[in-house]
Amino acid sequence: MRTLRELGEEGWIALLKSRFPSGGDVLAGIGDDCAAVRLPRGAGRKVLLLKTDAVVEGVHFDRRATPFQIGWKAMARPLSDIAAMAGQPRWALVTAALRGNMAARFAREVYQGMTAAAKSFGVAIVGGETVRTAGPFWFSVALIGEVDRRHLRLRSAARIGDAILVTGALGGSIHGKHLTFVPRIAEARWLVEHAPIRAMIDLSDGLARDLGHICRASGVGARLEAPTIPMAPASAGSLHRALNDGEDYELLFTVPASAVRRLRAGWRRKFPVLPLTQIGRIVRGSRITLADAQGNTRPLNESGYDHFRKEP
Amino acid sequence: MRTLRELGEEGWIALLKSRFPSGGDVLAGIGDDCAAVRLPRGAGRKVLLLKTDAVVEGVHFDRRATPFQIGWKAMARPLSDIAAMAGQPRWALVTAALRGNMAARFAREVYQGMTAAAKSFGVAIVGGETVRTAGPFWFSVALIGEVDRRHLRLRSAARIGDAILVTGALGGSIHGKHLTFVPRIAEARWLVEHAPIRAMIDLSDGLARDLGHICRASGVGARLEAPTIPMAPASAGSLHRALNDGEDYELLFTVPASAVRRLRAGWRRKFPVLPLTQIGRIVRGSRITLADAQGNTRPLNESGYDHFRKEP
Repeated sequence: MRTLRELGEEGWIALLKSRFPSGGDVLAGIGDDCAAVRLPRGAGRKVLLLKTDAVVEGVHFDRRATPFQIGWKAMARPLSDIAAMAGQPRWALVTAALRGNMAARFAREVYQGMTAAAKSFGVAIVGGETVRTAGPFWFSVALIGEVDRRHLRLRSAARIGDAILVTGALGGSIHGKHLTFVPRIAEARWLVEHAPIRAMIDLSDGLARDLGHICRASGVGARLEAPTIPMAPASAGSLHRALNDGEDYELLFTVPASAVRRLRAGWRRKFPVLPLTQIGRIVRGSRITLADAQGNTRPLNESGYDHFRKEP
Repeated sequence: MRTLRELGEEGWIALLKSRFPSGGDVLAGIGDDCAAVRLPRGAGRKVLLLKTDAVVEGVHFDRRATPFQIGWKAMARPLSDIAAMAGQPRWALVTAALRGNMAARFAREVYQGMTAAAKSFGVAIVGGETVRTAGPFWFSVALIGEVDRRHLRLRSAARIGDAILVTGALGGSIHGKHLTFVPRIAEARWLVEHAPIRAMIDLSDGLARDLGHICRASGVGARLEAPTIPMAPASAGSLHRALNDGEDYELLFTVPASAVRRLRAGWRRKFPVLPLTQIGRIVRGSRITLADAQGNTRPLNESGYDHFRKEP
């Protein structure tokens, strides 16, 4: 089996070029100094969305992950962030740091996973870079998307009295979903077109922590109703996991309480398989509390993942 | 001295947020799911330039580099690629992979270097990501720029009979320039506005190899005049180094021969300190030859840097 060192850099780039041709809106793709893409007519009313996200061996995936899954996750993570802004993803740049003794086939299969995720959401891979590493290998995806100014949704827009809703079911993503999840691009775009969505975020750090991000950015508090929180089978019925596990990649958003009934009816028709659940309310203050079935509340600590502190 | 682990991820992000605030064209900067930037009026006539470039410990810098220089280089490398397309750089996303035991001060000084380079060229750092690594640390910069469609310059536009010109002096960059070079943004924009520049590239792989990129993309050959090739002091008078050393980060371009005299006169008035030198001609065929002072020619081998094959 050929290694990357045997294939050589030119051979590897030639392989990538043949897989990601230019054309259409892409004036220059892989093989020039930069990628050059044509902006659409009326681009002046658009907002450009910029995101970069890396997956690192031993941090974001381990030996149980297939190369296809690694590639899928590398592309799907920034896609999920574009979804959180209700955006349409358009172009991606891929940086790969690979070991010279890595099988070329393994690297190819990672790109197949990235390409599959990109194609699913209308994204063109237009460039990037390959560097060598002697350490853990990694892939970094820079993603460029766009959104109409009136559809842009920020974390800072939550208002007191808003209902808090979440898509899907939470917890236990580490048992598999973190490698295979489907970014909620279509769902987010439908939401902003059909309901007065205020703040929105994708769940990557865990419900407690990501709700904390919305509350701090908006200067508000929140009250969660524990019995309503949708738990994924992989959470094994643990409320703690549903609240604190990272990498759910679902949408968490707020909307005026008066709009919830109509929103949920429309949602059920459009996305009959994916749950949409109200799990609490935005309240005055800065604290997040968790209420049990009896209405007793306790403060919710933000647990979740800290990249530096959790280092072994 | 505090390490990143002691500072924690939230502390580190808070530090970054305070240094890179939103405002103006930046609707959402560090701290939301994506950066969101407003496109200018008339954006439909613009081409978006997308580039990503990483610097890896042990590959692109070693212990002799100061953290400021590492940051400067991380930002200046993709800036040089935007220059090669005659673009105006606008926004950057920075991915940092750091070790938990790294001094927070070291990481801060790297960002100071990146910020200095960004500010010099009107770039706003609008987002990014910090991940931990147990291996070599690295910084990846994704850069987004723009250029008027009529000013976009690709590698594939060289024509038979064109003069080949280069800015600055070549060779020996490893002795220091590779950490401190100034991307030729202003020079490239002046060139496309004042002369009928055809193909352009920035010199990162070495003159021989980068000219090879232009020739292959354009389906032409080239003849270089050895005595005219400008050698940097750091090349120690070695033509081999001027031809093959990487990381010069100068501009290499072609222009119709009839335009050279007027171009050089204008250049000397505008950039009196930076040499601009004609070093050869684009010719029929696909080979690059090197002519000595007696007019004897020999084929030029493309040496230069191969990321996979050169691995120790």
